[in-house]
Amino acid sequence: MGNLNTMYYPEPLLKLMGLLRRLPGVGAKTAERYAFELLTWSEGHLDQLGGSLSSLRSQVKSCDQCGALLGEEPCTFCDPQRRTAQVVCIVGSPKDLYALEETGEYRGFYHVLDGLLSPLQERGPEVLHLDKLKQRVSDLQIQEAILALDSTLEGDATALYLKDQLETMEITVSRLAFGLPMGSPLEYVDGGTLRRALVGRRLF
Amino acid sequence: MGNLNTMYYPEPLLKLMGLLRRLPGVGAKTAERYAFELLTWSEGHLDQLGGSLSSLRSQVKSCDQCGALLGEEPCTFCDPQRRTAQVVCIVGSPKDLYALEETGEYRGFYHVLDGLLSPLQERGPEVLHLDKLKQRVSDLQIQEAILALDSTLEGDATALYLKDQLETMEITVSRLAFGLPMGSPLEYVDGGTLRRALVGRRLF
Repeated sequence: MGNLNTMYYPEPLLKLMGLLRRLPGVGAKTAERYAFELLTWSEGHLDQLGGSLSSLRSQVKSCDQCGALLGEEPCTFCDPQRRTAQVVCIVGSPKDLYALEETGEYRGFYHVLDGLLSPLQERGPEVLHLDKLKQRVSDLQIQEAILALDSTLEGDATALYLKDQLETMEITVSRLAFGLPMGSPLEYVDGGTLRRALVGRRLF
Repeated sequence: MGNLNTMYYPEPLLKLMGLLRRLPGVGAKTAERYAFELLTWSEGHLDQLGGSLSSLRSQVKSCDQCGALLGEEPCTFCDPQRRTAQVVCIVGSPKDLYALEETGEYRGFYHVLDGLLSPLQERGPEVLHLDKLKQRVSDLQIQEAILALDSTLEGDATALYLKDQLETMEITVSRLAFGLPMGSPLEYVDGGTLRRALVGRRLF
């Protein structure tokens, strides 16, 4: 654990620390800090958090159409009354969907993938459930698919693959623009980003 | 919440984020990150963490003598077979005890306070349960009490108060030394610390 104190801790506390360390960015020290803080919580708060975790999977489902997260209510992202354009935005995770929705710029449909292609982690085209995507594209009479995927190896591979597949359906396939992040001084922008910002320059 | 995305999140997810924000140093962004990560956990892992939290209070008790955390087994910090000196080290929280134990320098008894004096938070001498401390000092035939308290306003106030109270019992009362932290360049040490390191200088 990189922390010798732990050998003296009571077993249930050690177990809790081990579980907390599964959270992203949580190492031995942070797990320890959280665990000791949790020891000071009231029984009521601990039960609330415990219950919230145990029921998470049953309370938060995914929409079986678009894959967005779903509370009690029907999926607002699939409601044709609220969605105006014959456009589908393809994202890699439920969280990305909220980030796009928050821009206020987009009113089309969404499609959340189960994951991105990753040869290294042996995730092939089957993770993309292409049949389902194609079915939705045809059902919703989609004219344009916007690929809103990570700018990573996996995102690039997935984008290329989806482009090939979707273009056979005679729809426009676009991808989010690459360029300078807002508010960023030029000297701090990496070479790859700058190159793509230059290639993608627009009339001013 | 300082984060507008949240208005679109399913209610149970929002509730989970709210609970996670009670952890130390966890703000809206981190709670969000944890919650989305938790959504990807298996039902089994979520149940483990949920159960671990719900049973935390019943599984981790405090020793009713020294106040240290207690697993299933009897308190090792109160075991006279393992504790050699007629010394008691007074700490402000169970976590501090482990840090001292880890130094390997100390083999006496411990006494964990329920909290430190804090006029601002209206914590007066009653939080120190002085009767119990005095009883232990006399039962264990303690010769020296080491005050290992935070170097803060609360720690200082508590140390002063305990010193007055314990000295009437005709035992030695000492406090951890103040001085330079190990490995610290002099230029980064604050004035207060440097002053106390100077006052507390030792023959070399």
